[in-house]
This record gives sequence, C-alpha cells and structure tokens, in this order.
Amino acid sequence: MSSASIRKIRLDLSYDGTDFEGWQIQKEGRTVQGEIEKALKTLHKGKDITLVGSGRTDSGVHASFQVAHFESENSTVPSERFRQALNSILPRDIRIMKSREVDPSFHARYDAVMRVYRYYLIKPEDQKAHMCRYSTTSVLDLDLKKMNEMAMELTGSHDFTSFAAARDPNENKVRTIHSARFYREGPYTVFRVAGNAFLWRMVRTMVGTLLQQYENGGGPENIREILEKKDRTLAGPSARPYGLFLDKVIYGSEKALY
Amino acid sequence: MSSASIRKIRLDLSYDGTDFEGWQIQKEGRTVQGEIEKALKTLHKGKDITLVGSGRTDSGVHASFQVAHFESENSTVPSERFRQALNSILPRDIRIMKSREVDPSFHARYDAVMRVYRYYLIKPEDQKAHMCRYSTTSVLDLDLKKMNEMAMELTGSHDFTSFAAARDPNENKVRTIHSARFYREGPYTVFRVAGNAFLWRMVRTMVGTLLQQYENGGGPENIREILEKKDRTLAGPSARPYGLFLDKVIYGSEKALY
Repeated sequence: MSSASIRKIRLDLSYDGTDFEGWQIQKEGRTVQGEIEKALKTLHKGKDITLVGSGRTDSGVHASFQVAHFESENSTVPSERFRQALNSILPRDIRIMKSREVDPSFHARYDAVMRVYRYYLIKPEDQKAHMCRYSTTSVLDLDLKKMNEMAMELTGSHDFTSFAAARDPNENKVRTIHSARFYREGPYTVFRVAGNAFLWRMVRTMVGTLLQQYENGGGPENIREILEKKDRTLAGPSARPYGLFLDKVIYGSEKALY
Repeated sequence: MSSASIRKIRLDLSYDGTDFEGWQIQKEGRTVQGEIEKALKTLHKGKDITLVGSGRTDSGVHASFQVAHFESENSTVPSERFRQALNSILPRDIRIMKSREVDPSFHARYDAVMRVYRYYLIKPEDQKAHMCRYSTTSVLDLDLKKMNEMAMELTGSHDFTSFAAARDPNENKVRTIHSARFYREGPYTVFRVAGNAFLWRMVRTMVGTLLQQYENGGGPENIREILEKKDRTLAGPSARPYGLFLDKVIYGSEKALY
C-alpha cells in the first residue's frame, strides 16, 4: 500500500461535557474520544482509528475548542469534508468545527505550546436554566481587584503539586502559567488561565482555592505559601466541572497570535 | 380560614425546553407547569396548587424569562423565599429567578401586554457543541437589510391565519406586532419579535417563512401577500423549536420601560 493513501487529519472540535465521562476512552462509559473513534471507524469501512487529543478533560468539563488528530488510510472523504461527514454521524454534544490535512509530523499533544481555559461563575439568582450546564454558582460578592492580586501569584513557572489531584500521574509537576485573571462578562465572572500545560484538576483547584481564600480573607501571600509548601491539603476543594471550558489550544507557529 | 393566609405569588422563571413536552401540563410527558406544580405541592403539604403562566410554549422551546402566578395558602415560606425553596426542589432545567407577593388581582396571562421572543440562527461551521441546544443552523448567507425589509411587513395589526398552526384554537387571529427585526450577536443571527400576543407556532412560522422567501428571492410583497391570503399553506415550514426563546413578558405599568 502506498503511503500516498495515508493522510494525517487535524480536527478542531467542541463538546458539551455534561453527558460524558470525560475525553479519554474507557472500558465503560460514554467518552468524547470513544464517540469520535466510533464515527471514524464507520467512515473507514470498519477499520479501527486512534484519535489523539491535545489533552484530556475530566467528566463534565466542556471544550469550546479542542484539537485532535488521526491517520486516515484509504478513505475517499476529502480532508475538509471530514467535518460534515463526522457531524452527520456524531451526537449533537460533539461538533467538529474544522478538518484539514496537516503535515505527517503534526502531533496534537506534543506540538501544543499553550492551553487556555475559562471558568464561568454566576450568582444563583442570575443563573437562568440555559446557563446551568455551563456555569457554577457562587454567592460570593467577588472584588476582582483582590481576586486578581491572588491569581497573579499563580503566573510564572512553579511546582503545582499543591494544585494537582493526588492521583495525577505526572512526575514533573512544574508548569508555566502565562496569565491568570478574572473579568466580568454579562452575568458571569470568568476566570481565564493560559499555560503551557496543566496537571489533573489543576484549573478547578485554582478556582476552588482562590474562592476559598477570598472567603477567608486571604491574600497573595496565602497563594504563595500554598504553592511553596507543595501540599495538596493546603489548597481548596476543586470547583465543580460544569463551569469549565477548554477554550483554546495553541501550536508553535500560531503562538505569536495569542 | 381567614383570607389573610392566602397570598398571590408571582414567579419570574426560565427553562431549558429541550427535555420538556412544552409548558402545559399533560396526562403524560414531562412539562414545565407539571414540574413546578409538583414542587409547589411539596411546599404546601401535599395540597394541589395551580400555576398560571403568561402563555404556553411548545415542546423544545426555551424561556429565558417567563412569568407565572399561583395562590399560596397557609404556607410559612416568605414570598421572596419561594425562589430558593423551589430551586432546591426543581430539576436544573427550570430556574426561578424571582418570587414575590403581588396584588390579588394580578393575572400572569390576562395582564401581560407584550411578549418578546428571540430566535437564534447560526452557520453549521460556527455552531459549537454548547450552542446546539439553543440555536438552529442555516447555511444561508443572510443579507439583513433584505431580511428586515420583509420582517417589517409583519409589524402592525394583522390577521395572522397564514402564520398559525392549523390546530390553533383561537377564533380571532388578529395580533399586533410591535417590532420584528434581525440583528447579529456574536456568531448568531437573531430574529427578535415583540407583539401583544402570539398564535400557536407563529414565531417559528415567521422565521421559516422569512428564510424560505429569502432563499427563493422573495421580498416584502410576498410577505404582504401571504398575510392577505390568510392561507397557512402559502407560508413556509415552521423553524425548529431549539432556536426559540421566550425572552420577556411585559405587564401594564412596565410597558413604558421597553
């Protein structure tokens, strides 16, 4: 078989995490990777296709922009047409926004240089029914100046052991956070964080910790201390998954744009 | 029993219509009215309570702002507290934003002087997964100037027989449309229509007809003719319910505010 019949396809996609057991395929449970691989198998005459994502997201976490790749062999579907072909098979809580052929060396995980997440908080009385899947309620009257003074402490390169789930499998827990800030958007208070990579539950633990410290009258020095101690028990609880979106994945040459 | 123990309570509420068979209670099927009446019964020691809404919405149609009233007898729940009390019992696809005691003469349906609906259209390639429940895809490249010239024909007082479902039970089909226009909002093209009242499926048939006429190169004269002929078969198909939100209900004294 000639290599000309093999194409590497990049997908830009989104999903509503509510009804998924996260991104990664499992023996049981509905997963994003599992649903897309099933659809790809249909489009490749029953051949198993492996989908590689930029990273995993947990059960309940959404993605408004996620990137993945797969190798397509002996398919007649034009590269740009995989979008429609997949969308016509996939359930509506996964939508492919774009498909295209990329260089065979492209790797959705290894080549990603930056990930951006957003976490949506809202007051209970402002949360309308159509916002419930995509935001988390908080009764706190947040002073964004104080929140951002604390969030600023998270930026830079740190060992984020205190903010990682106990079961996080990464040996090296140093990550670089480029920016971390709160802002208002309509009825929401949004936490936006951009970094080279994230540990398991890291964003949700950042949000939970910042809220807990705010409620307890803490400040930047508390965040600094939690980081330095490298002790998960000092950080706050992980915020619920529903408010979290993977919002952007950035690759080498695109970096300058963001 | 003294009448002092009876209070008329107004609810401002929202719902995600996706998993409901519409507003109105039925023998079978999950309805918004049914779910709230069940919760009210729990809060009134098993007594049946009737909830009166400003109007019905169809299966799949959402409300970001709907109004309803009920009479509360012998309850110790403070009027403003019905919001939290109901929200703690109700499923998350119904959210009460506000509860308050109103004059015993208040009637959620009869006193409403204006209803506002919004319909969200989006290009397939722009529809991310978390938008699928709340928008309808259209591949048409809409020229909003042309769309609004047609929409303008719907304003004023007309017999809307051509835009009502065949089974609409209203004898008098004259309704007054105060405004009807398209605008862009982020990735969406939104149709906003305000009127004193609406017939069954009227908004969705307006949207379906305007899109069909646009696609066929029609203009304001076609809309005028469809109205004049009072013949449902001349209008277009009803647009799908998912993109439609009841967005506002306005009462007498508030009218000047909108």
